[in-house]
Amino acid sequence: MQARIHITLKPEVLDPQGKAVLHALGGLGFGGIEDVRQGKTIDITLAETDRSVAEQDLIRMCETLLTNTVIENYEIEIDGI
Amino acid sequence: MQARIHITLKPEVLDPQGKAVLHALGGLGFGGIEDVRQGKTIDITLAETDRSVAEQDLIRMCETLLTNTVIENYEIEIDGI
Repeated sequence: MQARIHITLKPEVLDPQGKAVLHALGGLGFGGIEDVRQGKTIDITLAETDRSVAEQDLIRMCETLLTNTVIENYEIEIDGI
Repeated sequence: MQARIHITLKPEVLDPQGKAVLHALGGLGFGGIEDVRQGKTIDITLAETDRSVAEQDLIRMCETLLTNTVIENYEIEIDGI
């Protein structure tokens, strides 16, 4: 089973990396860019075949290791859904 | 218009960060994890309203700044599609 976790900074948290990309794109002549935010994805291949068990495991992985829930949000996508 | 760019290492490129996460999850007692790969996302808010123009701009952004096409793949998603 293939899962993808999207981790993004909460909207109220400053994202200096995103701002750097925004300015760099402006410097290269790309106009009309209003905002850039950078996040990360973690693709996990699981042996588990039961979707609901996998989802519970992934939530625990996010809460204990993968994300900092004070400043980050996460979304879990399993087999592209 | 809201775009999301998914950037992942090509499958043949070693991903030490993913391996570190894999081992850390194992150490926390999570079993049955076959592989972990880490990637990044860049969320861009564009003023452009024409989807095909936006897509061309995003491809140029990826090719010139956002990705290293030697070792990375990218996928562009516009308004969730």
